[in-house]
Amino acid sequence: MNTDYEKLESNIGYCFKDKDLLINALTHTSYANEHKHKGMKDNERLEFLGDAVLELVSSEYLYKNMKDMPEGKMTKLRASLVCEPTLAMDAREIDLEDFIYLGKGEDETGGRKRDSIVSDAFEALIGAIFLDGGIEEAKYFILKFALNDIEKKKLFYDSKTVLQERVNSVKNGNLVYEIIKEWGPDHNKTYEAAAKLNGKIIGKGQGHTKKAAEQQAAFDALKTLDKRN
Amino acid sequence: MNTDYEKLESNIGYCFKDKDLLINALTHTSYANEHKHKGMKDNERLEFLGDAVLELVSSEYLYKNMKDMPEGKMTKLRASLVCEPTLAMDAREIDLEDFIYLGKGEDETGGRKRDSIVSDAFEALIGAIFLDGGIEEAKYFILKFALNDIEKKKLFYDSKTVLQERVNSVKNGNLVYEIIKEWGPDHNKTYEAAAKLNGKIIGKGQGHTKKAAEQQAAFDALKTLDKRN
Repeated sequence: MNTDYEKLESNIGYCFKDKDLLINALTHTSYANEHKHKGMKDNERLEFLGDAVLELVSSEYLYKNMKDMPEGKMTKLRASLVCEPTLAMDAREIDLEDFIYLGKGEDETGGRKRDSIVSDAFEALIGAIFLDGGIEEAKYFILKFALNDIEKKKLFYDSKTVLQERVNSVKNGNLVYEIIKEWGPDHNKTYEAAAKLNGKIIGKGQGHTKKAAEQQAAFDALKTLDKRN
Repeated sequence: MNTDYEKLESNIGYCFKDKDLLINALTHTSYANEHKHKGMKDNERLEFLGDAVLELVSSEYLYKNMKDMPEGKMTKLRASLVCEPTLAMDAREIDLEDFIYLGKGEDETGGRKRDSIVSDAFEALIGAIFLDGGIEEAKYFILKFALNDIEKKKLFYDSKTVLQERVNSVKNGNLVYEIIKEWGPDHNKTYEAAAKLNGKIIGKGQGHTKKAAEQQAAFDALKTLDKRN
């Protein structure tokens, strides 16, 4: 665990007036439970708030920048930007996982790699910036770290659907996913999935759930296909 | 349909700089479809935005005013404030249903009474105020018309659960709900439900779905019980 907050503040481009808010955002419930006697609070209330800040900022962004997009498509696009795997990806861009206060057990069983824990801390961080610096600072952070690379995130979110559509449109191929490897203890398994077109591997991906590994494999296949075309 | 916007603006205590935004918020998709040639847009995109504004303002309110409430309870309380029947109730406080542009068919089949249509217009109105006057104006409106009477709304939302708990705690009574009347054409039915304790009616309620009528009946029973005690 890294407690060099100045490093984190430099990563995110925001300096907290109230450092307690930052620490609160980084405190997973497993750590708070182990340190209750010190009055540690977990980050769940801040996550509740940050989730709503993120929802508004992304909705306003889409409303103003996608002027002709119907509501249904905006809802889907927003989901691709604020879903757990995407937010975990955003969080890893700023090395947030290194700074999370985790309980011993949670840390030893790979909690620092879990999308849910990392994405929750990311939302809590948004909540903390909102409280510390107001909506404009939160907006600036969200635009920079969550509403970037929208096309890539959209493709990632939809990758299994998009890959299936591509396969259908080119030839009548048979696309299947297979878990080709898995390792680690039961509570912290990693899966490797392969996307296979007519028996040939066209993409591989890893994840902590089978679904995440398959999504990654589809995304990998799409990137490979795009490079070829 | 009432097109006296000044009356509506007086009801809501906000005067639009851009009246087109107000009209957009009031335009149900059924009306927009009938008047496509005039370039009418429906209110779905504004509803998408308004929903997010409401989510943030209510989350911030709960975060700041319920300092010791755990995240799970805040999530439930927020749901009771922003759920469809509650928002429809809020909308009716400002007579919003009278001002909604509805398609002919929708209007004739009772659309103006439907919770979904009325609550969607309420969210779209929030989105319009946000775009027209900024977050502070939207916050003022939401605090006044959506975050009022919180205890009553919470009780309404939970009424079936709360009534069951009361019944369990007082005596081993048998609480059941019965639909005792229904009327109107298939596409616009109204149901009347009774909450019965050991065969005796203790509350009645009406609604456009059986579930809504039962919730109203439970709420009615709770109010009666409270008056007695």
